[in-house]
Amino acid sequence: MRRWLYVQLDPEAWRGRGLSPLNLLVTILILLSAAVAIAATEPVLSDDHHALFRAAEIAFGIAFVGEFAARWWVSAEGRGRVAFMRSPATWIDLAVLVATSAPFVTGNGQLLRLLRLLNILRLAKLGRLSSTFRRVIAAVASRRYELLLTFLFAVCLMIVGAAALYWAEGDIQPDKFGSIPRALWWSVVTLTTIGDGDVYPVTPLGKVIAAGVAFAGIGLIAMPAGILAAAFSDAMRRER
Amino acid sequence: MRRWLYVQLDPEAWRGRGLSPLNLLVTILILLSAAVAIAATEPVLSDDHHALFRAAEIAFGIAFVGEFAARWWVSAEGRGRVAFMRSPATWIDLAVLVATSAPFVTGNGQLLRLLRLLNILRLAKLGRLSSTFRRVIAAVASRRYELLLTFLFAVCLMIVGAAALYWAEGDIQPDKFGSIPRALWWSVVTLTTIGDGDVYPVTPLGKVIAAGVAFAGIGLIAMPAGILAAAFSDAMRRER
Amino acid sequence: MRRWLYVQLDPEAWRGRGLSPLNLLVTILILLSAAVAIAATEPVLSDDHHALFRAAEIAFGIAFVGEFAARWWVSAEGRGRVAFMRSPATWIDLAVLVATSAPFVTGNGQLLRLLRLLNILRLAKLGRLSSTFRRVIAAVASRRYELLLTFLFAVCLMIVGAAALYWAEGDIQPDKFGSIPRALWWSVVTLTTIGDGDVYPVTPLGKVIAAGVAFAGIGLIAMPAGILAAAFSDAMRRER
Amino acid sequence: MRRWLYVQLDPEAWRGRGLSPLNLLVTILILLSAAVAIAATEPVLSDDHHALFRAAEIAFGIAFVGEFAARWWVSAEGRGRVAFMRSPATWIDLAVLVATSAPFVTGNGQLLRLLRLLNILRLAKLGRLSSTFRRVIAAVASRRYELLLTFLFAVCLMIVGAAALYWAEGDIQPDKFGSIPRALWWSVVTLTTIGDGDVYPVTPLGKVIAAGVAFAGIGLIAMPAGILAAAFSDAMRRER
Repeated sequence: MRRWLYVQLDPEAWRGRGLSPLNLLVTILILLSAAVAIAATEPVLSDDHHALFRAAEIAFGIAFVGEFAARWWVSAEGRGRVAFMRSPATWIDLAVLVATSAPFVTGNGQLLRLLRLLNILRLAKLGRLSSTFRRVIAAVASRRYELLLTFLFAVCLMIVGAAALYWAEGDIQPDKFGSIPRALWWSVVTLTTIGDGDVYPVTPLGKVIAAGVAFAGIGLIAMPAGILAAAFSDAMRRER
Repeated sequence: MRRWLYVQLDPEAWRGRGLSPLNLLVTILILLSAAVAIAATEPVLSDDHHALFRAAEIAFGIAFVGEFAARWWVSAEGRGRVAFMRSPATWIDLAVLVATSAPFVTGNGQLLRLLRLLNILRLAKLGRLSSTFRRVIAAVASRRYELLLTFLFAVCLMIVGAAALYWAEGDIQPDKFGSIPRALWWSVVTLTTIGDGDVYPVTPLGKVIAAGVAFAGIGLIAMPAGILAAAFSDAMRRER
Repeated sequence: MRRWLYVQLDPEAWRGRGLSPLNLLVTILILLSAAVAIAATEPVLSDDHHALFRAAEIAFGIAFVGEFAARWWVSAEGRGRVAFMRSPATWIDLAVLVATSAPFVTGNGQLLRLLRLLNILRLAKLGRLSSTFRRVIAAVASRRYELLLTFLFAVCLMIVGAAALYWAEGDIQPDKFGSIPRALWWSVVTLTTIGDGDVYPVTPLGKVIAAGVAFAGIGLIAMPAGILAAAFSDAMRRER
Repeated sequence: MRRWLYVQLDPEAWRGRGLSPLNLLVTILILLSAAVAIAATEPVLSDDHHALFRAAEIAFGIAFVGEFAARWWVSAEGRGRVAFMRSPATWIDLAVLVATSAPFVTGNGQLLRLLRLLNILRLAKLGRLSSTFRRVIAAVASRRYELLLTFLFAVCLMIVGAAALYWAEGDIQPDKFGSIPRALWWSVVTLTTIGDGDVYPVTPLGKVIAAGVAFAGIGLIAMPAGILAAAFSDAMRRER
């Protein structure tokens, strides 16, 4: 019985294709609970069906406590209970379980919102269920220094861009470019090629600088794409 | 005669370069019919030339019924009629043929619009005509787990981003960030680096969170680009 | 003398690093003439310095006629005059030379603007001067079917996206989504992740469809990036 | 003593993992001084804590003069003092040191802003501390001709796009497309897929041209991503 449950719950022990039936059920439950938690924040829905949402939250809470207990029980079959309790994933699960049961105790407000945010972290458990996840993480991690460097380069570019527009348009649009921290918002939105359109330069000089930042933004997207492409190519070649 | 038609209609049987003359004609007809269906939705054009558009639709309908009959007739030369009738592509073709003849029966309105949408699906047949299509699909499909994972990661990020802005600006801009489902629109538009500009954070805290989501959006574009680059590199190497 | 000029003008014959001194001068002249042609369209500049701009245009015209004559003269040293006159690049040069001398004959207006546009095509000659250009073009051309397929796929997606929003919001925002051709503008701007913000869905259904199109847009950028990455990798490996 | 300081300060001489403790401290100091310089431009912060910011600037100034002196002192252990004084990095450091001490001499205004901008250049020193930086730069530099060509191609496309919209909408939106230099702003924002939304075409012809430019923008992002992917793949393969 415990052996069967172990094979069902541990993706490493499962020999069939894809997820085991039980892990598939857990995955669907996690997705459903996330969807319910998201829908519960919408006043149009939650005001009319308050009791329903509360009942669903309790049901999900019981199901996930049961799942956690089962994982603890079967851990003796696999890596052992000490290893299970030492794993960071176990502590994340426990933290989410405690946090998502708190709303029934505390009142409404900002804190409750944060706890609902934690509820969504349950989604993070999905990743653990897949072995592909580990290979992708390994490929990305093998290039962590290059990616960190790209990020640092992006941050420098962002600051230089913000400083340049602060210098060029700080007096003309003081509420938008009147200080480097204010100009940083424009800098982020431009470098990531989002371009919300709430802030943009109006002088020829500002536009010339912005054009330079915009072209640099292209490189900012191309760099991590190139690094990851090389990492995945390398990982695939080693697989064979 | 049937042999000649078979070689003309089946891209696998055709030994020349590119498309056979008959398949080129079919391709042009499909593109023309799609262009006519698109133009027919524009009141400026369709109000004045109503009879012309109707005549074109009937002509295209007859041509495509003839093409379908010809494909059925020549299927005996290739994989056989049973295999032809079992292929999903055959049933898509049939569904589109039936759907695009319905406008002459039913009245105007929402339903008709959906049927016109189906009419455009004829374009999907273009892909079948090409052998490159299969190689690209095979390369993409070989990395389907990695791409699915990236998509799941993007969905998680989208939800976390929406929840964070709901928490930060839910009270300040209730119509835009007043619930997670409402904030999801901003989240999608920012993560995909579109940035329509109809929704954006206004508080410093909201902007800091948005900057984090924006940088994550860069990774969201770089990940599939990297995975596909590795897949195409791999496919090319195996070709030789 | 002709031999020296031939080595100076033909980038294939030049054995040194980079461009020959004469081709560098021609490159600078082309860039300068383009800059002058661009600046001449700005009323703030051209109204005050009309004679100056006209003089510069005449000077550039004479210089480029001289350059063309020199290339014709030295062609006997290389591939021969017949091959020179048969090259498409020669005819593009001639067309631009004739077109850019026309403004002195005709009056102002729309036509003149088009001719000024042609003037800028001189920039295209820069590419010919480089041998790197040929390798990049060869790498891109080796994957032309894959890139064409991606483009066709993008066009299909664009039409399907426009049709879906026409169906969802055609009645609510008739001036923006009232027909598929009108909705196509939104579709292009969203799929290419530009997001100008002049058109966007306002209903929940429209936003859900738009989110799907936005995610497809990510793939649309990742696909050609992946194909080109594989092409350049392959080209580099064959070089060694 | 000098030997120990040399090993601590020169990232090449340091044999441990990551940065040496002293270089880690320098890195943190540089980041802190940049953060203080950025915060000092925000009137909300600097107006109330003027003395604090001035004290921090003096403290950072003394620390960086000390660091520069230490690097000069230990250079005798490594490449020698002549090589140290000939390195461009030394002169950048000196220029920043002189520039950042100037605010205590000169008054407020535009010039001071530029000097504060230079202060941020200290961030550039972070790159020197890492050996990964050199490998990334080498990989990018190995493809400098391809990247330059992509940039030139982008500039041509940008000019052609601006000229096309000047021709199409120059009379309709004279303040936005009334000259090629004015239309260039739209062209840059569209080609880099930013799309701020302050400028966009309104006529069908303008929108068709803009759609073409938008699709070309996809290629503009895909090209450098592909080139860098190939460069990083190549660099990784040579490493092993």
